[in-house]
Amino acid sequence: MSSIKEREAQVRAAAAKMGKGTYVEGEPKNGTFRKDLQKESSKIVTLEEAIRRSGLKDGMTISFHHHFRGGDKVVNMVVAKLAEMGFRNLTVAASSLSDVHAPLIEHIKNGVVTKLITSGLRGELANEISHGLMEEPVVFRSHGGRGSAIANGDLHIDVAFLGASSCDPAGNACGYSRSENAKSICGSLGYALPDAQYADKVVILTDDLVDYPNTPNSISERNVDYVVVVDSVGDSSKISSGAIRDTKNPRDILLAQTAAKVIINSGYFKEGFSIQTGSGGASLAAVKYIRESMIEKGIHASYALGGITAHMVKMHEEGLIERLIDVQSFDKVAAESLRKNPFHKEVSANEYASADEPGSAVHYLDMVILSALEVDVNFNVNVLVGSDGIIRGAIGGHPDTAADSALSIIVCPLLRGRIPCVVDEVTTLITPGSTVDVVVTEYGIAVNPRRPEIAERLKAAGLKVVDIHCLKDMALKAIGNPDPLPFGDKVVGVVMNRDGSVQDVIMNIVD
Amino acid sequence: MSSIKEREAQVRAAAAKMGKGTYVEGEPKNGTFRKDLQKESSKIVTLEEAIRRSGLKDGMTISFHHHFRGGDKVVNMVVAKLAEMGFRNLTVAASSLSDVHAPLIEHIKNGVVTKLITSGLRGELANEISHGLMEEPVVFRSHGGRGSAIANGDLHIDVAFLGASSCDPAGNACGYSRSENAKSICGSLGYALPDAQYADKVVILTDDLVDYPNTPNSISERNVDYVVVVDSVGDSSKISSGAIRDTKNPRDILLAQTAAKVIINSGYFKEGFSIQTGSGGASLAAVKYIRESMIEKGIHASYALGGITAHMVKMHEEGLIERLIDVQSFDKVAAESLRKNPFHKEVSANEYASADEPGSAVHYLDMVILSALEVDVNFNVNVLVGSDGIIRGAIGGHPDTAADSALSIIVCPLLRGRIPCVVDEVTTLITPGSTVDVVVTEYGIAVNPRRPEIAERLKAAGLKVVDIHCLKDMALKAIGNPDPLPFGDKVVGVVMNRDGSVQDVIMNIVD
Repeated sequence: MSSIKEREAQVRAAAAKMGKGTYVEGEPKNGTFRKDLQKESSKIVTLEEAIRRSGLKDGMTISFHHHFRGGDKVVNMVVAKLAEMGFRNLTVAASSLSDVHAPLIEHIKNGVVTKLITSGLRGELANEISHGLMEEPVVFRSHGGRGSAIANGDLHIDVAFLGASSCDPAGNACGYSRSENAKSICGSLGYALPDAQYADKVVILTDDLVDYPNTPNSISERNVDYVVVVDSVGDSSKISSGAIRDTKNPRDILLAQTAAKVIINSGYFKEGFSIQTGSGGASLAAVKYIRESMIEKGIHASYALGGITAHMVKMHEEGLIERLIDVQSFDKVAAESLRKNPFHKEVSANEYASADEPGSAVHYLDMVILSALEVDVNFNVNVLVGSDGIIRGAIGGHPDTAADSALSIIVCPLLRGRIPCVVDEVTTLITPGSTVDVVVTEYGIAVNPRRPEIAERLKAAGLKVVDIHCLKDMALKAIGNPDPLPFGDKVVGVVMNRDGSVQDVIMNIVD
Repeated sequence: MSSIKEREAQVRAAAAKMGKGTYVEGEPKNGTFRKDLQKESSKIVTLEEAIRRSGLKDGMTISFHHHFRGGDKVVNMVVAKLAEMGFRNLTVAASSLSDVHAPLIEHIKNGVVTKLITSGLRGELANEISHGLMEEPVVFRSHGGRGSAIANGDLHIDVAFLGASSCDPAGNACGYSRSENAKSICGSLGYALPDAQYADKVVILTDDLVDYPNTPNSISERNVDYVVVVDSVGDSSKISSGAIRDTKNPRDILLAQTAAKVIINSGYFKEGFSIQTGSGGASLAAVKYIRESMIEKGIHASYALGGITAHMVKMHEEGLIERLIDVQSFDKVAAESLRKNPFHKEVSANEYASADEPGSAVHYLDMVILSALEVDVNFNVNVLVGSDGIIRGAIGGHPDTAADSALSIIVCPLLRGRIPCVVDEVTTLITPGSTVDVVVTEYGIAVNPRRPEIAERLKAAGLKVVDIHCLKDMALKAIGNPDPLPFGDKVVGVVMNRDGSVQDVIMNIVD
């Protein structure tokens, strides 16, 4: 055996050859009992400390998720703190924004926030922006488009502030909690996962700091820099209307029955099919009729995707749907199911709907039922801007699922009050008509001429297939030609296609 | 409303301002039923195609995991194909290598493989390398060290070839299968996860191509470029000795009882403690005694870490251990549990034991029981090189867990046949003595002088605490001073510390 001296020389020589240092003994071991050591985690700081240590500077981009929807408390809390700390000129890149974020108006007026990137806008914030509040146009992206943009660097996030219903001192975080002190639940954190993975710094805000290991978990400690404990990250009662209520609106029931018939006769209603549906009344009701037919015919779905609802959870638990793939839990039942059931799988926005990733779930989606504010005679769909020209919605996964599914079905009444839903040209182009296959209205079903085989199948089943121009004419006849909208010449919004190109612009509205 | 022409101009202007293109309609939709479309997945190719499309070139680095241990078939299969295709000068970076990889000897002699990076080597390959087979020294890293090196770019992988017991056409892969055609099972793919995340290209080899979505899954489709279907990725019967057999070796039983007593009286045996144990006879038996004491005292562990065994699964199912954190399933019972139980959590090598990540599981580990080939009077441990100077082991997570746990316990007989296990100086330094707290032998317990409080507690419990020099003297007295090993002057191995520095070298042995 070589002597210690000889060995030291050999180690130095080997290290030099590899361009490495040699090992130097480190700090003494920390003998603290690990339950106690957790409390000393260097990641646990106040919100102000997290902001300071993150290196956030004026002009940078911060991000948020919207899994608490109307109950979100994180955006307002963080932006208020940033305003208090004197930050200026920030870009807020949220997965979506809604009514509850009206306080942003003041922060925009004060120059704290100068740019918004989001899937949607609603309420007073949307109204003010539509009227020209901001200098910079709001950039709108679909959920899949946002995931892609974050992954490919088009949307660079400096600091992500992500609300979680539980987090341990290492940073393992979930949209639910298994502790007795659980204060909130939102279920899937799918839209926050790209932020967690790609943001330069990640701050978890949680209202339930739990013992390590908070596992199975959603966001891994690997991606978390700071953990901030707050009173509340969100009001879970607002993630949905709550309990499942079957619609009693006769028009919605008719639309739902028709949509279900389209699905059942589309040629895709076969053993192992996959489906995504929205959370609207007609969509939920359609699921009810599809379920009945699945039981009757002995057909099982391989997976249900998307916004997962209590209806889908029930069908999974009944054995009718093998897997649930959940990027966003649409209600508390879905959120609870995600916590308990390993076959109810949480996925990131990228795994859900990225156009860049051939394995994302939308690529294997047979059918999707979607809603619309407007559909036009070229099958283009608008889900973002009202017929009054004011922003009042969100792109969501609409263009992603329409593009990649085998069959996309838009369910939409012909009229909403005095507003026509089938028009000559959509106010804003969100989902290109080339990706929309069927439009279901209470006055008939229009099938995109690009899909003649679908029209044949539906006709063979005795369904009322009509030309979309007829639907538009019916709507116009009932309402008369609408006046042109009073748009100004300022671009207040830019709609990105999921491939990263610019697809449409939204002009300011002049009252 | 602006005319279509006006809108087109506005869109072009907005795109120009953002430096983006404008949206152009894409390919027509693919209307194929998605179960059928899966078969056309562009990711499914032959091994040769995967290699060609991966862009692999002479001189590059390929990687493998060792979750099938002695039953692995992937390394030999892939390297044989690469040899056949004429590749030269490749670096094989496996998470570990064993007896079964003896065919690498020929590929090394033929210049196909010119460098190895691994946690361990065994059998004829190890013997040949110890005798100077390779020009380049083998680089040895701990599991945590390998994870860190991959994450920080120190170990760059060009193409990872990862065996999986199931994979869907999108690339979602697991170390088990839920299909009726399951051919293999290895459980956790924890050591493959850094490769999947950081390698330039990732090839999954699977013996069970299942329908999408293969979820819950281990490796995400996001990280997978190619899927290759093969007859067999591994012989699952060789991932462990199989069924749990309690040791009948009286010395092992004595060592196990003593180790259990050390744990129980260490000051860390409290509600919510965490523990890692090896799969050796004494370690397994120690778990049995710890279990009895947990039941008797009503103490529960928050988690068991590491190589998970059937023993740990049993205790988890009994409610004695809240969570299992599994980087490697040590037997089929553990692998099956991982498949079925969401609280049996799979983690990557980085989440397990990276020194760079303050949240990795070893940082919250109270106690670890480890084995040793040799311990020296400075508490340094060797688990890689035999006392004959020939490589016959693996670093594993030994230095990672010793360094970060509150209490590391080495269980080691004083002698193995005519070979002393407590020595003046270890043949090769794997785990620095500063991180080793207690050495349990059948002739007494040595406590590192850096941990006087532990020695006090053990003495107070009536345990036989002795100076480590006494143990060494006892061993020498029984055996006599060993002859110096016939080392040559060629460096055949370099041992990296988990922090990326060079810690020791292994010289060639001359018969």
